[in-house]
Amino acid sequence: MQRNPIMTTDNKTWSGRFNEPVSELVKQYTASINFDQRLARHDIQGSLAHAQMLHEAGVLSAQDLADIRRGMAEIQAEIEAGSLQWSLDLEDVHMNIERRLTDKIGDAGKRLHTGRSRNDQVATDIRLWLRDEISTIRRLIKDLQAALLDLAEQNAATVMPGFTHLQVAQPVSFGHHLLAYVEMFGRDDERMADCRRRTNRMPLGAAALAGTTFPVRRETTAALLGFEQICQNSLDAVSDRDFAIEFTAAASLVMVHLSRLSEELILWMSPRFGFIDIADRFCTGSSIMPQKKNPDVPELVRGKSGRVIGHLTGLIMLMKSQPLAYNKDNQEDKEPLFDTVDTLIDTLRIYADMMRGITVKPEAMRAAVLQGFATATDLADYLVKKGLPFRDSHEAVAQAVRHAEQAGCGLEDLPLTVLQGFSALIENDVYQVLTPEGSLNARNHLGGTAPEQVKFQVARWRKLLAADA
Amino acid sequence: MQRNPIMTTDNKTWSGRFNEPVSELVKQYTASINFDQRLARHDIQGSLAHAQMLHEAGVLSAQDLADIRRGMAEIQAEIEAGSLQWSLDLEDVHMNIERRLTDKIGDAGKRLHTGRSRNDQVATDIRLWLRDEISTIRRLIKDLQAALLDLAEQNAATVMPGFTHLQVAQPVSFGHHLLAYVEMFGRDDERMADCRRRTNRMPLGAAALAGTTFPVRRETTAALLGFEQICQNSLDAVSDRDFAIEFTAAASLVMVHLSRLSEELILWMSPRFGFIDIADRFCTGSSIMPQKKNPDVPELVRGKSGRVIGHLTGLIMLMKSQPLAYNKDNQEDKEPLFDTVDTLIDTLRIYADMMRGITVKPEAMRAAVLQGFATATDLADYLVKKGLPFRDSHEAVAQAVRHAEQAGCGLEDLPLTVLQGFSALIENDVYQVLTPEGSLNARNHLGGTAPEQVKFQVARWRKLLAADA
Amino acid sequence: MQRNPIMTTDNKTWSGRFNEPVSELVKQYTASINFDQRLARHDIQGSLAHAQMLHEAGVLSAQDLADIRRGMAEIQAEIEAGSLQWSLDLEDVHMNIERRLTDKIGDAGKRLHTGRSRNDQVATDIRLWLRDEISTIRRLIKDLQAALLDLAEQNAATVMPGFTHLQVAQPVSFGHHLLAYVEMFGRDDERMADCRRRTNRMPLGAAALAGTTFPVRRETTAALLGFEQICQNSLDAVSDRDFAIEFTAAASLVMVHLSRLSEELILWMSPRFGFIDIADRFCTGSSIMPQKKNPDVPELVRGKSGRVIGHLTGLIMLMKSQPLAYNKDNQEDKEPLFDTVDTLIDTLRIYADMMRGITVKPEAMRAAVLQGFATATDLADYLVKKGLPFRDSHEAVAQAVRHAEQAGCGLEDLPLTVLQGFSALIENDVYQVLTPEGSLNARNHLGGTAPEQVKFQVARWRKLLAADA
Amino acid sequence: MQRNPIMTTDNKTWSGRFNEPVSELVKQYTASINFDQRLARHDIQGSLAHAQMLHEAGVLSAQDLADIRRGMAEIQAEIEAGSLQWSLDLEDVHMNIERRLTDKIGDAGKRLHTGRSRNDQVATDIRLWLRDEISTIRRLIKDLQAALLDLAEQNAATVMPGFTHLQVAQPVSFGHHLLAYVEMFGRDDERMADCRRRTNRMPLGAAALAGTTFPVRRETTAALLGFEQICQNSLDAVSDRDFAIEFTAAASLVMVHLSRLSEELILWMSPRFGFIDIADRFCTGSSIMPQKKNPDVPELVRGKSGRVIGHLTGLIMLMKSQPLAYNKDNQEDKEPLFDTVDTLIDTLRIYADMMRGITVKPEAMRAAVLQGFATATDLADYLVKKGLPFRDSHEAVAQAVRHAEQAGCGLEDLPLTVLQGFSALIENDVYQVLTPEGSLNARNHLGGTAPEQVKFQVARWRKLLAADA
Repeated sequence: MQRNPIMTTDNKTWSGRFNEPVSELVKQYTASINFDQRLARHDIQGSLAHAQMLHEAGVLSAQDLADIRRGMAEIQAEIEAGSLQWSLDLEDVHMNIERRLTDKIGDAGKRLHTGRSRNDQVATDIRLWLRDEISTIRRLIKDLQAALLDLAEQNAATVMPGFTHLQVAQPVSFGHHLLAYVEMFGRDDERMADCRRRTNRMPLGAAALAGTTFPVRRETTAALLGFEQICQNSLDAVSDRDFAIEFTAAASLVMVHLSRLSEELILWMSPRFGFIDIADRFCTGSSIMPQKKNPDVPELVRGKSGRVIGHLTGLIMLMKSQPLAYNKDNQEDKEPLFDTVDTLIDTLRIYADMMRGITVKPEAMRAAVLQGFATATDLADYLVKKGLPFRDSHEAVAQAVRHAEQAGCGLEDLPLTVLQGFSALIENDVYQVLTPEGSLNARNHLGGTAPEQVKFQVARWRKLLAADA
Repeated sequence: MQRNPIMTTDNKTWSGRFNEPVSELVKQYTASINFDQRLARHDIQGSLAHAQMLHEAGVLSAQDLADIRRGMAEIQAEIEAGSLQWSLDLEDVHMNIERRLTDKIGDAGKRLHTGRSRNDQVATDIRLWLRDEISTIRRLIKDLQAALLDLAEQNAATVMPGFTHLQVAQPVSFGHHLLAYVEMFGRDDERMADCRRRTNRMPLGAAALAGTTFPVRRETTAALLGFEQICQNSLDAVSDRDFAIEFTAAASLVMVHLSRLSEELILWMSPRFGFIDIADRFCTGSSIMPQKKNPDVPELVRGKSGRVIGHLTGLIMLMKSQPLAYNKDNQEDKEPLFDTVDTLIDTLRIYADMMRGITVKPEAMRAAVLQGFATATDLADYLVKKGLPFRDSHEAVAQAVRHAEQAGCGLEDLPLTVLQGFSALIENDVYQVLTPEGSLNARNHLGGTAPEQVKFQVARWRKLLAADA
Repeated sequence: MQRNPIMTTDNKTWSGRFNEPVSELVKQYTASINFDQRLARHDIQGSLAHAQMLHEAGVLSAQDLADIRRGMAEIQAEIEAGSLQWSLDLEDVHMNIERRLTDKIGDAGKRLHTGRSRNDQVATDIRLWLRDEISTIRRLIKDLQAALLDLAEQNAATVMPGFTHLQVAQPVSFGHHLLAYVEMFGRDDERMADCRRRTNRMPLGAAALAGTTFPVRRETTAALLGFEQICQNSLDAVSDRDFAIEFTAAASLVMVHLSRLSEELILWMSPRFGFIDIADRFCTGSSIMPQKKNPDVPELVRGKSGRVIGHLTGLIMLMKSQPLAYNKDNQEDKEPLFDTVDTLIDTLRIYADMMRGITVKPEAMRAAVLQGFATATDLADYLVKKGLPFRDSHEAVAQAVRHAEQAGCGLEDLPLTVLQGFSALIENDVYQVLTPEGSLNARNHLGGTAPEQVKFQVARWRKLLAADA
Repeated sequence: MQRNPIMTTDNKTWSGRFNEPVSELVKQYTASINFDQRLARHDIQGSLAHAQMLHEAGVLSAQDLADIRRGMAEIQAEIEAGSLQWSLDLEDVHMNIERRLTDKIGDAGKRLHTGRSRNDQVATDIRLWLRDEISTIRRLIKDLQAALLDLAEQNAATVMPGFTHLQVAQPVSFGHHLLAYVEMFGRDDERMADCRRRTNRMPLGAAALAGTTFPVRRETTAALLGFEQICQNSLDAVSDRDFAIEFTAAASLVMVHLSRLSEELILWMSPRFGFIDIADRFCTGSSIMPQKKNPDVPELVRGKSGRVIGHLTGLIMLMKSQPLAYNKDNQEDKEPLFDTVDTLIDTLRIYADMMRGITVKPEAMRAAVLQGFATATDLADYLVKKGLPFRDSHEAVAQAVRHAEQAGCGLEDLPLTVLQGFSALIENDVYQVLTPEGSLNARNHLGGTAPEQVKFQVARWRKLLAADA
C-alpha cells in the first residue's frame, strides 16, 4: 500500500452546534489521520459488512448498498494506488473515507453511518486489524521455532557448559539449550492464541455507548466479518482496550525471551566465549576500529525489548482510572500498538533468518566444559548410588573440588588414590561419570539433556508445528 | 498459620569448597527466609511427592519414605503452631525444612534431596502456591460479579446519563452500566484461567538445570501433585518465570478495571453528582474537617492499581536479558508476586462487600439526564427513519441543540413549531423519543441498554456463574 | 527544515574485514537514518568545532579546515532545501554527512573523523540537541505559568469548593487553586534546569571508548560548542545515557501535572460541575450525537501522559545491566527521546493557549460551595478560639453537621438556638465565619487561600518570571 | 528502634457524623499504622515545632506547651523501648501519638492539632524523614566511590580489553574502567543533592488544603525544623508528591548503574573471563553442585534494580490524573518509598564492602587483550600520522586484520614485509604502537585511559570527596 498524502483542505466548524472552527494547533494535536490511515482496509471491510446488515435489516435500500459497494471499491483502489488525499480537517480515517464516499455516491454515503458511531467503528477496525497481525505473528513465531529446531537437531550431541549464575554448572547439549527457547516461544504462541480469541469479538452495534434505535442484527455483521463472539455490553464494547494491553503484555514476553537469547548470542560471540559466529551479513563494523565485527542485530533486539515494555506501561497508564465510556484518551492506544506489532514482526523475521546463519564452534564449547568442574554433581550422584546420603556426598565432592582447584587440574585428572581420600566408596569406574559425554547421556529422562531426549523433543515439536500449519 | 520466629544460629561456611563464612551483611541481604517461609506448606507437599516417586523408582527405601513422612508431618505441625525456629543461616525455606527434617530423622533426611536441586524445587513450590491463589482469586472475581449482578438487576430500569468525554451522551440504564464491569471481570476470569493452565506445569525433575542421573519418574510426581503438564526442557524449567509475569499482567488488568470503577464511585459520590452513597462503614472522616465522609476504599483501590502495575514493571525488568539458566536475580520474583496476590485478594474481597453497601439515588441520576440533551441522537435517528440521510439529520439536530441551549431549555421543551423549523419532517410523535425512558427502551438489541436486555444479561451471567461454581 | 528523501544506493561490505554485504533486512532493521537525520544541524555544528580544534592542535591543515567549512555550509543548505539524498546504506546521519562531504571536498573529508568515533560523536550531537530543546521547554513552561497567573489574578476572589477525596472540604479561591499548578510547573522548571546542566557536558574526545592518540584539546572544542563541562572519563562518556533518562523523568512529572490539571478541567466542564467552559476551538463534536462538545485537548493530554511515562520505562529498561562501553542497544535511545520532546513541546504550547480560552462560571462554583458544609472547619476553629480544645470542638461540629444534613439545610441555615444546642459557646457572631467569603479571608497567611495572599503570590511569580526571561 | 505491637482496641464510629463504625476488613485495608509507625520520630519532631510556634503565636499557653513536651518525651521513650501499643483503630501514626498524648496530658493533647490537619502533617513527616535518608544515601554513595578509587589507583596501569558490543575494542586501564563508575555515582550524588533541596520544603501550615484561620507563623516552624523553603501554596503543599517520584527516579538511576557494574562483575568472575575473584564471604554455593561458587550479591543487585524501577512506575501511576487536593490514594506513596530507601541503603553498603573484597587477575586481563586485535585503531592512527587520510587508513588496517585472522595470529605477529603489503607507509617503529601498553600510554589527554590520567582523576575525586565530607 502506497503512502497517501495528507492535506489541510477547509476549516469549517464541527457542526451547527459550534461557534468557531477548531484551531490549527488543535487540529494537528488531535487528528489521528497521520497514523490511523493504516486501518483503512479494515475500516472499509467493516463498513461493507455494516451496510449489508443494514440492508438485510431493511434500513438501507438495495440501491444504496450497491452504491456503497461501488464507491468503496473505488476508494480501496485509490488508497492502494496512493492517490487518495487524506484531509487533516476530517480528523481520522473514518471521516475521510465517509466523506470521500459521499463525494462519489451522494446521499447513500450519508446513510452509511446509520446505527453506528465512530466509537464502535474504531474499536471494530482495530480488532479486525489486530487479529490479522496476531495471525502473522504466530506464523513468524513458528518459523523461528523451526529454525531453532534445525540447529538443535544438528547439535543434539554438542557438549557445552550449562551455566547457572554464569558459573559452569553441568554439561548440557547445545541442542538442549536451544530447545529451552523453543519452549518459551511455544508459550508465547499459546498466549497469542488466547489473546486473539479475546480480540476477535465484535463491538459494532454498540454505537456511541448505548446501542442504537435501529433494528441492527449484530449476529449478521459478526458472521460477515468472521468474529467469534459479540461484545455483550455496549458501554464495555466502546471503552474496552483490554485486548491492546493483553497483546502488548504477550508481546513483551516474546521480547523478554528474545532479549535473553540475544544476551546469550552476544556472550557466545564474544572472544572470551567464542562458542558461535554470526554471519557477516547480520553484523556491522566500526567507524574507527578497523578490526570490529559487532553483533548488532541481537544488541538491537535486546534494546528494543525496552521499547515494547515501555508501550505496555504506557497503555496501562492510559486506561487507569478512566471513567466510562469512551474518552479521547483512547486515541493514544494506536501508536504504541502499531509500533509493538511492527517491532515484533520485524524482530521475529530477522531472528529466524539470523539463527539460520549461526556457525557453531563445538571445540570451544567442549574446552569450556572442561574448565569448571562441570561433572562434580555426577561424582556426587555416583557416591549416592554407592550408598552415601546425598548431603554427605555433596560435602565429600566439595572437598575434592577444592583440592583439584588448588592443584590446578580437573576432577578427572586426580589419581584414584587421591579421589579415594575423599570417599572410600570411589572405584575405578568413576572416570566414566567424569566425562562430559557420560554426564550428558546419564540425564536421559523426559526433559533431560541427553542427546536422545533432544532428538525426541525435536521430533515432538516438529509434529506440533506441522499439526498447527 | 502462625508467624514463626527467625534466628541466626550458626555461621559455618557454605561447603568444604569455601574458605570463609558468608558475612553477616550478605546473609541478611541474600537470605529469603523472611518472605519465602510462606511457601512452607507447598514445599512440604512437593517434597512428599518427590520422596514417594524416589521410592517407587527404587532410589529411596520404604523405611526412608516412612521416616520422611513422619518427620514432615511433625514439621508441618510445628509451623502451624508457630514453634518452628527459622534460621537465617539456612537461607531459605527449603534448607530450613530439610535441616529440621534431618535433625529429626537422620540420614533419610539427607537423602531427600537426591535427584533434585533448589532450582527446580523453588520453581515447583511457587507454581503449586500460585495455582491455589489463582483459584481463590477466580472465586472472588465471581463473587464480585454476583454482587454487581444483584445491583444491576435492581436497577435495570434506573435511568442515568451515559457519559462520553464526561459529557452527557445518551441515557443508559444504571444496571447496564454496572454490567459493563461484569463483562470486564469476566475477561479477567478468562485470563486467570489461561494463566493457571500455564502455571500448573511441573518443573520438578529438571534438577539444577540439566536433569538428573537418577531414574526419576516425572509423570508419577506430576500425578501426585495434580500438575496438568510437565515442563519439557530442564533449562527452561528452572529459568522460566513467565507465569509470574503473565499472572501480574492479568492482575494489573483486574486492578485497571477496579480503578475505573473506583473513579466512577468517587465521582458518583461527590456532591456534584450525588448518584450514590457508600455505606458509612466503608468511609472515614477527617482529623480537621468535621463534616467529611470520604470514599477511602475506592480511593485506596485506585491508588493500589499503581502498586500492582509497578510490580509488573519490576518483574519484567528482572527477567530482561538474563542468560540461562538460573540466576540469583530470580529470588526477587517472590515479594512482588506475594504482594500482588495479597493486594488482589484483599481488594476483591472488600469490593464485593462494598458494592453490596451502595445506596442508589435514582432521582439525582434522572435529573442529570435531563440536563444535557441526552436524547439528541434519538431525534436524529427519528429523522433518519423519516427518510433524511443520517449526516443531514445530525446537522439539523445540532442546530436545534444550539437553539435550545441559548433558550436555556431541553429539546423536549421546544414547541413543535420551533422543532419543525429545523426539519419539516418532525411531527407530534417526536416527544415520545425525547424522553429518557423512550430512549432507553428503543435500544433493545443484543448488548443495548434497554431494561429488557439488562435482565437478559443478568440471567445469562447468573447461569454462567452457576455453571462454573 | 524540509524532509529529505532516503534512498538505498549501494550494497558494499562494511570494510575489507567482511566477507559479505549486510542483508537488506538487517540494513532496514539497524539503520537509524530514518530518525537520526533530525540531528543533522547539531552533527555539523559538532564536526565544525572538532575540525577547528584539530587544526589548532596541528592535526589538520588550514586548507583542510577551509574545505570542510565550505563543504559543510553546502550540505547544511542542501538539508534545509530538502535536496540531500540520505542513503540507508550509510546507516546514520554521521556517515551520510561525512560521505557527502568527501564527495564534495575529497581527502579533507576523509580526515575529519581523525581522533573521534561515532560513539562520542552521536553522544555529543544528542546532548547539543537536547540542551536546545530543554531551553525551548523551559520557555514554554514559563508561558503556561504566565497564562495561569493571568487567570489566577482575575479570580483571586472567586470562591469555589476546595475538594479533598472529591468531597467538599473548605472554600478556596479559584485563583489560589490555579496557583497550585504554577508551583508544580515551577518545580518542573527547576528540574529541567538541573537536567540541562548535566546534559551540557561534552563527550567528544572520548573517541570509541578510550580516548585517542591524537593530541586533542578538549577544552577548545568545549568552548567552541558552549559546553559547561567536559566528561572526565572516556568509557563513561560514550556509554552514559543518564541525561536521557533524567530528562524523560522530568518530562514525566510535567505530564503528571498536566494530567492532573486535565482531569480537573474535564470535571469542571462536565455539566455536573459546570464550573468552566473551554472555547469551542479546543473542542470537537461527535459523529453520532449532535449535542456533544467534548474537551478533547485535556483528554488527549491525560492520555499522552502514559506515552511519555512509557518512554521513561523503556529507556530505563534499555540501560539496565548493559556492560560498558557502547552497545548497539543505545541506538534505541533516540526515538523515545525525540517523541518525548515533541509531545512535551506540543502539549505545553497548546495548553497555554487553551488556558487563555477558559470561561469561568463563578455562580456555579459558589453554588457548589454552599452544598457541602464547607465552613464546618471554620465553626470548629471558632469554638477553639472560644476556649474549647480542638478535638472536642471537632466532635461538636460533627454533631451539628449530622443534624443539618438530616434537616436538609446548611449550617448557616440553622437558628442560633439550635447551634447552641451543640455548644453553648456559640454566639450570634458565628454567622460571619459560616460564609464562604468569611472562610476565605480568614486564611490570610503565607500560602493560604485568602485573596490577598493570591495577589501576593501572583506578584511574586510575575517577578520571578521576569527575572528569568 | 524496637518494633512496637499493633492492637485492635475499640470500634467506635469516626465522629458524630457517622451512623456505623468502620468494618474490620476496611480497618485493615485502610490503616497505615503497620508501615507509617516508621515516621514516629519525625512526627514527634514536627509536632513539637508546631506546638512551639502555636505558643509563640499566642494560640497555645506555656503550660500546654510544657505538657506537650513532657508527654512527647515519654512517648518517644516508649517507642524506643518498644512498649507503645499501636492501635489499628487509630489508623495511623499521627492519631496514635495524639491519642497517647491526650491520655497522658489531657486537654493540652487535644489542642495540639489546632491549625493543622493530617494532610499537611503527613507531608511534613515524610519530607523530614526523606531528607535524612537522602543524607545517609549521599554518604554511602561517597563511600562506594572511595572504595572504587582505591581499586582504581592500584590498577591504574593494569591493562584489560575495553569492550564495545562485548567485542574487544581497544586496551584500557582497569583503573580507568572503574573510574567510569565513579563518574556515574558522582552524577547520582548531584541528583540526590538536587532532590534533597526540593524535598526540604515545609508543607506545614497548609492544614487540610486551604490554610488555617489561626495566626500561624510558618517561618518560625520552618526555622525550628531546618526547612530551607516553605511551600507557597496550601493546595499544592498537601497534594504534592513530586519529591517522592523525583527521589525514586534518582534512586532508579543509582540502581541502573549498579546493575551495569553487577553485570560486569558477573561476567568478569565467569571462568570464560576470569578477570576477578569476589571474596568467598560474598558468595554462596549450590544445594546440588558441590563445585559452585556463585556471585550472589551482584546478581541480587541486578535483580533488585527491577524492584526500585517498579516502585517508580507505581508512584507515577499513583499520581497520574489525581484531582486536587489530597486523596486517599496518596497513602500508597509510603511503602514504595520506604522500600526504595531500604533497598538503596542496603545495596550501597554491601557494594562498597564487596568492592573492597575484589581480587584482580591482571594476567587473565592482559591475555584477553592480545586475543582481539585491540591495537588495530593504533595502527590506523599511525598511518594517519604518516599522512594517510583516516578513512583510507581504516580500510588498509581492516585488510590487515582480515589477513591476520586467517593466519590465526595478532597484528603484532605479522612480519614487517607483510604489513607493508597493506600500506607502504609502515615502518619498523610500528611494533611499538601495537603493544597494549603503548596503546594505553598514547591516550594521554583529559578523560583518556593513560595511567597518568587515571592517577590524575583519582586525585581529583579524592579532593572532591574530601571537600564534601
